Amino acid sequence: MKGEDQPLVISNVALEGKPVDIVINDGIIEAIHPHNPQLSIPHSLIIDASGKAAFPTFANLHTHAAMTLLRGYGNDVPLQSWLNDWIWPKEKLLTDEHIYWGVRLACLEMLRSGTTAFADMYFFLPAAARAVHDSGLRALLGDSVFGDAEAMADAASYKVPDWQDDRVRYAVAPHAIYSVSETGLRRVAHYCKANNLLCHIHMSETAEEVANCLRQHGCRPYEYLERIGVLEQLDHRIIGAHSLHLSPEEMRLMARYGVVAVHNPNSNLKLGSGHQFQYKELRQAGVRVALGTDGCASNNNLDMLEAAKTMSLLQKGWRNDPTVMPAAETLQVASRNGFEALGINAGEVAVGRLADLMLVDLNHWAMVPDTDTRANLLYAAHSDAIDTVICNGRILMRNRQVAGEAEVIAAVRRIAKELQVTQ
Amino acid sequence: MKGEDQPLVISNVALEGKPVDIVINDGIIEAIHPHNPQLSIPHSLIIDASGKAAFPTFANLHTHAAMTLLRGYGNDVPLQSWLNDWIWPKEKLLTDEHIYWGVRLACLEMLRSGTTAFADMYFFLPAAARAVHDSGLRALLGDSVFGDAEAMADAASYKVPDWQDDRVRYAVAPHAIYSVSETGLRRVAHYCKANNLLCHIHMSETAEEVANCLRQHGCRPYEYLERIGVLEQLDHRIIGAHSLHLSPEEMRLMARYGVVAVHNPNSNLKLGSGHQFQYKELRQAGVRVALGTDGCASNNNLDMLEAAKTMSLLQKGWRNDPTVMPAAETLQVASRNGFEALGINAGEVAVGRLADLMLVDLNHWAMVPDTDTRANLLYAAHSDAIDTVICNGRILMRNRQVAGEAEVIAAVRRIAKELQVTQ
Repeated sequence: MKGEDQPLVISNVALEGKPVDIVINDGIIEAIHPHNPQLSIPHSLIIDASGKAAFPTFANLHTHAAMTLLRGYGNDVPLQSWLNDWIWPKEKLLTDEHIYWGVRLACLEMLRSGTTAFADMYFFLPAAARAVHDSGLRALLGDSVFGDAEAMADAASYKVPDWQDDRVRYAVAPHAIYSVSETGLRRVAHYCKANNLLCHIHMSETAEEVANCLRQHGCRPYEYLERIGVLEQLDHRIIGAHSLHLSPEEMRLMARYGVVAVHNPNSNLKLGSGHQFQYKELRQAGVRVALGTDGCASNNNLDMLEAAKTMSLLQKGWRNDPTVMPAAETLQVASRNGFEALGINAGEVAVGRLADLMLVDLNHWAMVPDTDTRANLLYAAHSDAIDTVICNGRILMRNRQVAGEAEVIAAVRRIAKELQVTQ
Repeated sequence: MKGEDQPLVISNVALEGKPVDIVINDGIIEAIHPHNPQLSIPHSLIIDASGKAAFPTFANLHTHAAMTLLRGYGNDVPLQSWLNDWIWPKEKLLTDEHIYWGVRLACLEMLRSGTTAFADMYFFLPAAARAVHDSGLRALLGDSVFGDAEAMADAASYKVPDWQDDRVRYAVAPHAIYSVSETGLRRVAHYCKANNLLCHIHMSETAEEVANCLRQHGCRPYEYLERIGVLEQLDHRIIGAHSLHLSPEEMRLMARYGVVAVHNPNSNLKLGSGHQFQYKELRQAGVRVALGTDGCASNNNLDMLEAAKTMSLLQKGWRNDPTVMPAAETLQVASRNGFEALGINAGEVAVGRLADLMLVDLNHWAMVPDTDTRANLLYAAHSDAIDTVICNGRILMRNRQVAGEAEVIAAVRRIAKELQVTQ
């Protein structure tokens, strides 16, 4: 993991089709010059990136990272059985150590597929924070909340944890409106506002959930959040995972209160939750849209390049229109939109942005011929075309090598055996 | 490319979760034993496959292989513009040499993603046959036919080509019912029956095509083929690419005449042709179903593992049912169903089958933990988890190395430059 303490020069890399040199200093993209073989920056580490193209990395806005431990556990079963018979019994057995290695594997997988930031929702946050810290990525770790959010009853005594740093941040993650009470939601909202925190919540993932809300509260989920004052209190703080089954009125509310709608196309398909994410209508209403994978017990990976391809193809497919979600727009949803939602100044390879970028191998078969680099990356390639990943100016993967990979895989294997995670 | 002239032993490989030794001789799986470190087969080449799992390879039942040359050319545009403004003008420029290298790249890409047989439809078949032969795969090369099929007017003088061998076979490929006349379709049918050939045709890809058929002929596409006697003459010979927009009556006809319905989920989505392939109804009607990618100017790759995942997720998604298309069934559609449609005795790692198989790396992050190897392969992994590919008993890829790869990529780059394939 070099490049942290010295300037980094990515030499002769293709950016928007032109050969350039990218100078990174102190975690920031300091300069981008037309390629000059004689360029000399004192004390810099120079990476020869000829034959490679630079792209911004991805931001995965909805994960349950440690669930890599349960990858492939309980496939092809209905959602309620999957939760009751498969996932929840195993989750009860998890410890700090399990979470640490599960998140390490998640980070490894995300690095290998070009992701440098993610918004997570799970348990054992200090262990997860250590794993993210050790992996070198950025994360917003959401603290799962259920029921009445008892721990937040006395906001003064419920402190923001001390493990945060410049890359790893804390958020509150009320599970959903059907698993957190009105009292709980109000407490979360109050606490997030008081402590300037983001709030990550599952919203409108299934049609049943919306029907239940209508039955119980006489209104739809985002309307319910408005009615109980939570939308207003959480103005521009809500990351609404899924946001799949929405009315036009809900989209207006989401725009007004700056909610981020996070689409998880592979998870929605695999769990049979729905396939008609209202991207066009959300954008027309002015709602921010980002992309995620969901946890890899339901997806079953954390690959944002795959999620982006699925999003683009699915929009074209169910709209019967090949012109929607072109490659550039799709990659931007997967990258810049996600970083913006997290308040991170990345998602573009441009001077002044944080140095979160990846180098794609133009000699990979999927990138040949180099007709349209962006379209090749999105529509033809898989993550193995990504050669190098840099986060915050640090090289975390180079020549597809990530430090510590074998150790992570061995630890997860051992834990899976302990947990008896077998079909 | 070893293993052709001597017995091959794949030692200590996981098959259905158990460690075995697979003995391959003369292109056939001769024996499968429980793993025995002392197993000795005279003059054999032994591959240590510990940490790997054996799976049958894929059969891609609808490709236009040489269109790798036009990968990523004309994305996100309507179908008619894509054909008229982008694809057809470039196709006019193609030569034998272009086709050779385009098919070589296609074969490289298919090998890397675990495919050892494909059903193609294009032009310049002798050059394509050489490319397939040199690459070591199997193919059914469909000779594109338009209009009145003039060349087949005198069936006696129209000979089956002499470049066929045990792996590369000839078929006739009338483009579609809207681009081949009734006369042409009858000639093709007569010729295929007389020469015992398969017939590969685009059927019912778009709703417009079905509407046009109804307007012009007063019936739907498969009904039209029946009415003009082509279905009967081509009994168990038709590979019906797409077969997406079908009536129940058409499915009954397809079952009766042994038509193979080839689903191409990524192409259908990307071109906005439709997303509701009637898998369940087709199977209930007794229709054979196989899987394909379509050409990689429309998909944009030839990756059957990706196509299989998309098929499974899309069926679960649009049916709102996570229990349909489980992993085992989906992989079988992508493998055994396709081989059966081609009349090739592969698609299963079992004694007596042809030795077309692949070894998947169980230490790849996507395969960890090894909860359900099949589900991990389908739902979590990409093609880079495939380490070794064997076709007809020959090792074509090992440690992810394919002979001649750099030469293929350099040739395609050069040709793309000549053809000015740029956005």
